[in-house]
Amino acid sequence: MASTPHTETWARRDLLGLEGLAPDEVRAILHRATELGPRVDGGTFGNELAGRIVATLFFENSTRTRVSFAVAATRLGAAVVDAGGSASSVTKGETLIDTARNVEAMGVDALVVRAGQVGAAATIAEHVERCTVINAGDGRHEHPTQGLLDAYALCDALGKLETCDLSGVRVAIVGDIVSSRVARSSAWGLKALGAEVVLVGPPSLAPKSLAALGCRVEHDFERVIAEGLDAVMMLRIQFERHGAGGAAIPSVRAYRADYGLTCERASRLRGRSGNDGVIVMHPGPINRGVEMDREVADGLLDTVQSVVLRQVKSGVAVRMAALDLCVAARDRMLAR
Amino acid sequence: MASTPHTETWARRDLLGLEGLAPDEVRAILHRATELGPRVDGGTFGNELAGRIVATLFFENSTRTRVSFAVAATRLGAAVVDAGGSASSVTKGETLIDTARNVEAMGVDALVVRAGQVGAAATIAEHVERCTVINAGDGRHEHPTQGLLDAYALCDALGKLETCDLSGVRVAIVGDIVSSRVARSSAWGLKALGAEVVLVGPPSLAPKSLAALGCRVEHDFERVIAEGLDAVMMLRIQFERHGAGGAAIPSVRAYRADYGLTCERASRLRGRSGNDGVIVMHPGPINRGVEMDREVADGLLDTVQSVVLRQVKSGVAVRMAALDLCVAARDRMLAR
Amino acid sequence: MASTPHTETWARRDLLGLEGLAPDEVRAILHRATELGPRVDGGTFGNELAGRIVATLFFENSTRTRVSFAVAATRLGAAVVDAGGSASSVTKGETLIDTARNVEAMGVDALVVRAGQVGAAATIAEHVERCTVINAGDGRHEHPTQGLLDAYALCDALGKLETCDLSGVRVAIVGDIVSSRVARSSAWGLKALGAEVVLVGPPSLAPKSLAALGCRVEHDFERVIAEGLDAVMMLRIQFERHGAGGAAIPSVRAYRADYGLTCERASRLRGRSGNDGVIVMHPGPINRGVEMDREVADGLLDTVQSVVLRQVKSGVAVRMAALDLCVAARDRMLAR
Repeated sequence: MASTPHTETWARRDLLGLEGLAPDEVRAILHRATELGPRVDGGTFGNELAGRIVATLFFENSTRTRVSFAVAATRLGAAVVDAGGSASSVTKGETLIDTARNVEAMGVDALVVRAGQVGAAATIAEHVERCTVINAGDGRHEHPTQGLLDAYALCDALGKLETCDLSGVRVAIVGDIVSSRVARSSAWGLKALGAEVVLVGPPSLAPKSLAALGCRVEHDFERVIAEGLDAVMMLRIQFERHGAGGAAIPSVRAYRADYGLTCERASRLRGRSGNDGVIVMHPGPINRGVEMDREVADGLLDTVQSVVLRQVKSGVAVRMAALDLCVAARDRMLAR
Repeated sequence: MASTPHTETWARRDLLGLEGLAPDEVRAILHRATELGPRVDGGTFGNELAGRIVATLFFENSTRTRVSFAVAATRLGAAVVDAGGSASSVTKGETLIDTARNVEAMGVDALVVRAGQVGAAATIAEHVERCTVINAGDGRHEHPTQGLLDAYALCDALGKLETCDLSGVRVAIVGDIVSSRVARSSAWGLKALGAEVVLVGPPSLAPKSLAALGCRVEHDFERVIAEGLDAVMMLRIQFERHGAGGAAIPSVRAYRADYGLTCERASRLRGRSGNDGVIVMHPGPINRGVEMDREVADGLLDTVQSVVLRQVKSGVAVRMAALDLCVAARDRMLAR
Repeated sequence: MASTPHTETWARRDLLGLEGLAPDEVRAILHRATELGPRVDGGTFGNELAGRIVATLFFENSTRTRVSFAVAATRLGAAVVDAGGSASSVTKGETLIDTARNVEAMGVDALVVRAGQVGAAATIAEHVERCTVINAGDGRHEHPTQGLLDAYALCDALGKLETCDLSGVRVAIVGDIVSSRVARSSAWGLKALGAEVVLVGPPSLAPKSLAALGCRVEHDFERVIAEGLDAVMMLRIQFERHGAGGAAIPSVRAYRADYGLTCERASRLRGRSGNDGVIVMHPGPINRGVEMDREVADGLLDTVQSVVLRQVKSGVAVRMAALDLCVAARDRMLAR
């Protein structure tokens, strides 16, 4: 495995969340992603993970994230095995550990885990002996590579990839914050780089208790817009996580009126940094016409710059970086 | 990527259908398949697509076609990623485009697309920026690599692979023509090589309007047999595409009596070219005892020569050729 | 493909079952597994199957076994294609053959087959022309690589991998014998190496007719324990194979009292060979608290030594060996 200066900053076998990472650790991943990123455009596989097997173990279905990790591992020279999850009969925490230990016993080098339970990846990481564990989403808790790709795409759009310093940059995350591990991981990642993060939504989706994330919570999107923004990240309403009987919003129409990034609202966005319009982000999949109008998502307005597809591309780069750094750290631990 | 003379004939990034391809384009693919074909028997992978990622994106399930493309890409040295489709929540045209653009943004070099909607692959090809798109079946419209493999297997069986000239060769396509993208693509492919194609079936499955494909339409299979044939391609009745309430045939028994390739009927087939019996083709899977008797499918009669498994093998060769030529054309476009 | 002395002992293209294998054939696989085993721990792929394609064709779902074969093939340098099975429409024996012949026609070098019907893999092996067929489980009949991994893990735990001679070793297989292809294959494999195998369970799950396997059948677990044991293999109750209306056991509680490896019972196990406790095996997945208590499965008692995860690891090694030897034999046959 090619040695890089970042391996001296990064000493973790696993990537379980962004909360608690030091700013230098977040930057180590982003810098490594900057080095590996050009390979995403295709044409070559590297050999950083040659001879290694990366297994995806998704107890919740997510083709998009699974494919992104598979592409990232492939570009590093690894073989990828889909170890299932959703199709199997595993539903309880105990057998989730059994499944992971079984896959590890087969000689897998890294496990990419998605599960509905908060802390699933961390629990697995405690119980495996040798292999790297990457959290690809655990319930409403964290989805660290999504947070990293948001940070990477934002630094890229602002021309700040070299320093990964977002001091003075203000980002609003708007929508269903309470259900969103993406919001949590993005907030931790962006704050680690110095950004100011404002969480915006109705009280049912953005309760004041979220201030525990170290962010300002606002219910009035218009006021946040009036203050000026560098970037706005729109979230999908995750009806499937709201539970039975709990209509968290009165109606989609009313939600859109107050919190949707409609063309009208987007046309009033004003950037603070003199760039080409306010940067618009979305973790996908987009419900066009609900949280964001089509013209905004596709970047057709002068006042906004949509980086939605650049986020997807950044996802492969940061996943390459995370796999590379964590497996390298694991190798150093095993060699001791 | 190895340069071949065919790359001068082939200038398309995508393969969306056979309608409208020039005869020389069809021949360019078949000739490239002839070169790559010996590799199908196993033992080696090439490096034409080394460092490339081919993604299968199947919104309709088809293990057989998906595996054939995966094997073809693997034999060219590519990595293959199953980007799902059927298991995901995509059902509408708009998000079908979103899904494809997302997969492209991950750095995939070629997308193999199957979908229920006519024109799905073409729509995707319009909306992606860089990657090759291969149509693996769009509704009742086209399935171009199936048409190519039929042409390849027929040329092979007739000893005409060198010229790929089917002038003077008469082929009957029999059965559920109206539901069949295979019939459409095969008709376009065979006609491009000079063959005479007769479409045979009851009026409900082979309406006279199909003459728009440039083929003779006949309802009397016996008359077509009496005229003499070089090859007959039997199709499966696609009950699942006939829609609610629409019994397109009165009964399977009556259908079999009029249009099935029974042993009795097959024993009366007379070849026109002095070869080893009339060539029998079927795109699979075969409903033995319905459109074709078991003994016919397995080539146990003297009057027929079943090339059903040779078609399957040809499928890998033409898919290798299509991927190779389209990605090479894409590279030349991107290099400009 | 690297030539080894074992290739002179092993002359079969297919591995369909352990019944009828000569002891030297079983040892040939285990010895090859001993050579290949160190590679399971990761870090390298070999080139024994470079340029080859191994297809998994699972008509019954089993993520665990499928992944183990995929990892084994990958470590030998092969490409792996999942040819489906369960998701496709194949349910009858006839089309099962068609499916296998189709996959073979695509140029696959080895087929790993799991199906619900007894004899499915053997039937497929009769009907394919060139490719290796490995049985990954056929109904209640055999699961030969599971039997091999049990033998490998037991030899390993007893320090007998060099000779693979289990003379004088007594093993009890306890539980739902009648439903278990694992019990059948393990019994054949262990007996071939000279072990004494006792089948233990209530008359409904371990009927006396099982003596036809050449093993003693006992209904009294306590008596077997009192005689002394070197290893005990606990089986899961396969309720799903007992059929409608047939409650094969009166209650889980009563079953556990008589046949479960509870902590109390495990504490009374006495080894015969002076090793570190009686060896406890389980093919997985374990129903903790039913056939085995958690503390036993996790090896927390002084009187037992759990090798459950070592069995999983051994599975990759024996599958590497089986694929390697069978494909080598196939190559020699095709070269003649």
